[in-house]
Amino acid sequence: MRIWFFCCIFALVMLCNDIHKALCETARNYRQICIVADQNLTLDIPFLEGFPCLRLFVSERHKSIEMVAQIWDFLFEHDITRNGLLVAIGGGVLTDVAGFAASTYKRGIDYLNIPTTLLAMVDASSGGKTGFNYHGLKNNIGVFSSPIATLIWPQWLHTLPYRQFLSGYAEMLKTGLLEGNGLWGQLLQYDLDTMDTQAIVPLIEACLASKERIVAADPQEKGLRKVLNLGHTFGHAMEELSLIATDTEEKPDGLLHGYAVLYGLIAELYLSVIKLGCSKEPLQQLSQLMLHQYGRPDCKCSDRERLIRLMRQDKKNEHAGEINCTLIQSVGSPVVNQKITPEEAEEALDYLFSL
Amino acid sequence: MRIWFFCCIFALVMLCNDIHKALCETARNYRQICIVADQNLTLDIPFLEGFPCLRLFVSERHKSIEMVAQIWDFLFEHDITRNGLLVAIGGGVLTDVAGFAASTYKRGIDYLNIPTTLLAMVDASSGGKTGFNYHGLKNNIGVFSSPIATLIWPQWLHTLPYRQFLSGYAEMLKTGLLEGNGLWGQLLQYDLDTMDTQAIVPLIEACLASKERIVAADPQEKGLRKVLNLGHTFGHAMEELSLIATDTEEKPDGLLHGYAVLYGLIAELYLSVIKLGCSKEPLQQLSQLMLHQYGRPDCKCSDRERLIRLMRQDKKNEHAGEINCTLIQSVGSPVVNQKITPEEAEEALDYLFSL
Repeated sequence: MRIWFFCCIFALVMLCNDIHKALCETARNYRQICIVADQNLTLDIPFLEGFPCLRLFVSERHKSIEMVAQIWDFLFEHDITRNGLLVAIGGGVLTDVAGFAASTYKRGIDYLNIPTTLLAMVDASSGGKTGFNYHGLKNNIGVFSSPIATLIWPQWLHTLPYRQFLSGYAEMLKTGLLEGNGLWGQLLQYDLDTMDTQAIVPLIEACLASKERIVAADPQEKGLRKVLNLGHTFGHAMEELSLIATDTEEKPDGLLHGYAVLYGLIAELYLSVIKLGCSKEPLQQLSQLMLHQYGRPDCKCSDRERLIRLMRQDKKNEHAGEINCTLIQSVGSPVVNQKITPEEAEEALDYLFSL
Repeated sequence: MRIWFFCCIFALVMLCNDIHKALCETARNYRQICIVADQNLTLDIPFLEGFPCLRLFVSERHKSIEMVAQIWDFLFEHDITRNGLLVAIGGGVLTDVAGFAASTYKRGIDYLNIPTTLLAMVDASSGGKTGFNYHGLKNNIGVFSSPIATLIWPQWLHTLPYRQFLSGYAEMLKTGLLEGNGLWGQLLQYDLDTMDTQAIVPLIEACLASKERIVAADPQEKGLRKVLNLGHTFGHAMEELSLIATDTEEKPDGLLHGYAVLYGLIAELYLSVIKLGCSKEPLQQLSQLMLHQYGRPDCKCSDRERLIRLMRQDKKNEHAGEINCTLIQSVGSPVVNQKITPEEAEEALDYLFSL
């Protein structure tokens, strides 16, 4: 017998000028509300005053089962029932971990995301992927589960550090490569030096609409959704390597996710050129952008072997030990499940490291 | 926008005479298979030979995040990809924990249950509830996620200790109270002293059919499925108390789940009589069965306060601090979401302890 599990989920993504009002609209019917927020944020939102709030020190390195347990304990201490709501305010690490904690506490309570970084706005906080890092592998444990709403308040971007802004922008560039020349062209034209938070709003909207369309068609990443992994096979491996390699005290975050994705996009566009005959233009455009804004990757040629080993353990692989990528035939035409040999992966890394 | 998450799940529950053949039918298409099994079982199933197998020491007290992590580590060490299958062989603790580990590993891989106790056959191993105990509360962390199949092989019952048999039988009695006089009568007539494993098979089938019908109509326990909690508000509290109170070395398991459910059924049938005017007959029948087979509960009158505190933290509660029960109007007519005052709960415990 086949049973269909229907999990009705409001995957409401809302761009808002007034975060207080947006919360009134989405959360007012909950009798129990708890907040988890990045400790570095200034929270000045009247709606949330008076509710218990857990402040967390957040970094990629802290995206662990211990952080999940801190949130479980907090929900437990405040006697939150299955009808409660957890509001998660912060970057992608925080919304991923809080989403997992909420989705497993008493077999799942509702949660709401308020992303505060560009990366979390355009990527992590919508789409239903939750989880944490395990054994040094990114998001190796998790569940698919959507927040009742994701409230995007561009106001947060005013105080976002430039490197964090660039990190989010890399995911937008990926979306441009998936969507086609219209969005891709607009993204290349955006002036990253001025970081105009008004001009970026329509671009955020376009990226969110693109992701929403893809996720709605394939919420559990059985097929189409894999296009979103463009840049992430190489990107995740570089991120994982940097978490192993960097000094905890000096660089608690390792390589920022978006930087890793940008380097991954370059490697995977290179493979798109040699394997699928993609034009060299987007590869050259992205390489230029890297040199002007992001800077070269910190990895060395001697890291190639470890990077390839990490890619072979990627959770996106269908068979143990293989390397699986999303590539593009042209801007706007992604192709999923492309098998890459270790030699091809090495060649792509050689190109990236030679820039 | 509303997104419906469709998770197609084969909730196949199969009674089988030949476990090897049943595995061939359900699992032969998986290229990667891993096994988690109770260390006390003799596994003599040709199909499973050669696959990696993790043996676990299992008890209610070990139903923890550490046991989940042991299984995650095992899957990780064997490079299991998203297309892999985890086969869980054991009682309800093992299948609950293995189900949770599989459903969160790389955001979810398939798993298959082979329950080896009567309790796991009729209850834990089907219905999609997975999880583990946290902060002393039963199954406080978990997800809803169904195995691809549950293979029930009555052969396991031949070596099942009598107390374990009785523990499973209590859940069957609960099903009888929910289903109506037909099944209830058959269950009362079954001769528990002989423990005839052939005569119990049609009763197991009837109980499974009942649960399947209820779960299919309400997989995530939003309404109808709450009827399955009959006996469990008091039962879980007694189980939790016994886990706190008993000596770890001497009684690693605390009170067996089914014993706790039986005591819970008596307390909740008492409340059904005084609050809903249910006839006293089923209460008397169950009280007799307790005295003849199960024995009196170990709890003392002085435990009443702690039991009531535990009931107020139950994950089934919709509002913090209340006590929420499923009761019956008559055999076959359950009523969910019945609010109980602490005084009523005390009175029900007084009745139970006075038997």
